[in-house]
Amino acid sequence: MSLNMVLPKSVKIVEVGPRDGLQNESAVSTQAKVKLINQLSSSGLTFIEAGAFVSPKWVPQMADSLDVMQQIKREPHIRYSALTPNLKGLEKALIANASEVAVFTSASEGFCKKNINCSIEDSLARFKPVIEQAKLKGIPVRGYLSCIVDCPYDGPTNPDQVAHIAKSLIDLGCYEVSLGDTIGTATPMRVAKVISAVSAQVSLERIAVHFHDTYGQALSNIYQSLQMGVRVIDSSVAGLGGCPYAAGASGNVASEDVVYLCQGLGVETGVDLHCLAQAGWEISEALGRKPTSKVSLALRR
Amino acid sequence: MSLNMVLPKSVKIVEVGPRDGLQNESAVSTQAKVKLINQLSSSGLTFIEAGAFVSPKWVPQMADSLDVMQQIKREPHIRYSALTPNLKGLEKALIANASEVAVFTSASEGFCKKNINCSIEDSLARFKPVIEQAKLKGIPVRGYLSCIVDCPYDGPTNPDQVAHIAKSLIDLGCYEVSLGDTIGTATPMRVAKVISAVSAQVSLERIAVHFHDTYGQALSNIYQSLQMGVRVIDSSVAGLGGCPYAAGASGNVASEDVVYLCQGLGVETGVDLHCLAQAGWEISEALGRKPTSKVSLALRR
Repeated sequence: MSLNMVLPKSVKIVEVGPRDGLQNESAVSTQAKVKLINQLSSSGLTFIEAGAFVSPKWVPQMADSLDVMQQIKREPHIRYSALTPNLKGLEKALIANASEVAVFTSASEGFCKKNINCSIEDSLARFKPVIEQAKLKGIPVRGYLSCIVDCPYDGPTNPDQVAHIAKSLIDLGCYEVSLGDTIGTATPMRVAKVISAVSAQVSLERIAVHFHDTYGQALSNIYQSLQMGVRVIDSSVAGLGGCPYAAGASGNVASEDVVYLCQGLGVETGVDLHCLAQAGWEISEALGRKPTSKVSLALRR
Repeated sequence: MSLNMVLPKSVKIVEVGPRDGLQNESAVSTQAKVKLINQLSSSGLTFIEAGAFVSPKWVPQMADSLDVMQQIKREPHIRYSALTPNLKGLEKALIANASEVAVFTSASEGFCKKNINCSIEDSLARFKPVIEQAKLKGIPVRGYLSCIVDCPYDGPTNPDQVAHIAKSLIDLGCYEVSLGDTIGTATPMRVAKVISAVSAQVSLERIAVHFHDTYGQALSNIYQSLQMGVRVIDSSVAGLGGCPYAAGASGNVASEDVVYLCQGLGVETGVDLHCLAQAGWEISEALGRKPTSKVSLALRR
């Protein structure tokens, strides 16, 4: 009987809305981003992905990340991270005073090629100096791994392949690896297989999960992950975001829905749900749409 | 580790779209209902709630249930059920040749009063002759129990109260009781407590679950239920439906999303997902909107 199941006492929510969520939105002003991050800071979140230092040629929406990170009101207990695919990005992140940086690769060759235009092995080789430099500067590095269940180009991903690359990221010096179901096709049993394989190579404390709700399965997958002891969950306020390189990859799981689930399970997040939902409504209004978070829509009624 | 969890090999999906889903829709023609049910019949579903014999004064949308049930193409292996709150309703259901009938009450007094205008005890007393008559005619009776977790009027529902009324329904002669989270506020741990309480009084084979996705938690709750051995799941094609008497009670869980979850878990439903999704698109088009099923939206992309 599942009543006796052991769930974590608390989880860390990694709020990816300002970066992952907004990276495909062209019409968001620097001011709106700063306001969003400041509101998120007030909600009790302790980890906010605030920007990306990637080529503005490829991701013009993140070209103002330096301005954003310089203008936000910093809270000492909150980590503000930035995506840094290379040394040039890392330099900018240091100027921007990022608390952390992150690198990203894929568990599938097809997606890696399409998304960052190199093989998985080459991507890891590129990260090596970035991670070394970051460590010299005392900046922790997070690793993202996409397509951990299915790839839009290569089909199903082998859990052992996921475990192998996750371990490589940790071995290179990442303190945590975020396992991403980029196209949202995962269901709990497949998630269980991946986490089981990865946790045989990487300690559970270093595993985060990152689900997309494209097929409505994200919360079930998070629930499965919690049952396996995962304590770090990526999510995006108002369900902002998606991925332009993966067909049907819209829909990061909404932070509000994750917080509601955790509250119901007695798993602490430290987040004020109403405050978070308010931030989601305001950025959604700036985008001219409603949040995709069902909790947010229900609370407003 | 949850990898060794035992899930049911198969589940029965109780498709409630044509009744629960359409009971608040005024603009659906008899012809559209018949077409929907025929399409659902072709999808592999074996249980379809086809109509309701309730007062047309209260639910005018179901006034054509006799016509619907007389015009549908019956498949011998499919059960076509109808809601029958009283003897008058039962008589009509018999004329309509319903394979089964259903009665409905609430686990909370406040909702019972608002929804069917009597106390829980009185509702059970009303059902007694209905169930007796139905049994005499060889017609199985299903029992619905709403507000099993929270009531919009009375707040949280005591799981022991749910168990008590569920047992009363079974004792009266219902072969199955469907536990409804009418306002969609449940999360898996609360669901676990209710199922645990009910299954101490009623055998697990007689328990069905009926979740609303108002707060996005329905699939997680279904996943929890499956982990506890529940083998009957109510759902509504395209996510049709809601309840007019409960604030924020929109959103039956979509059958497509449930079938996708089950497929991923290796739990057989016997349903052809694409055929089901097509039925959902066609009735949604008739209603002038898109399905709320994320699976359905993702499959169309």
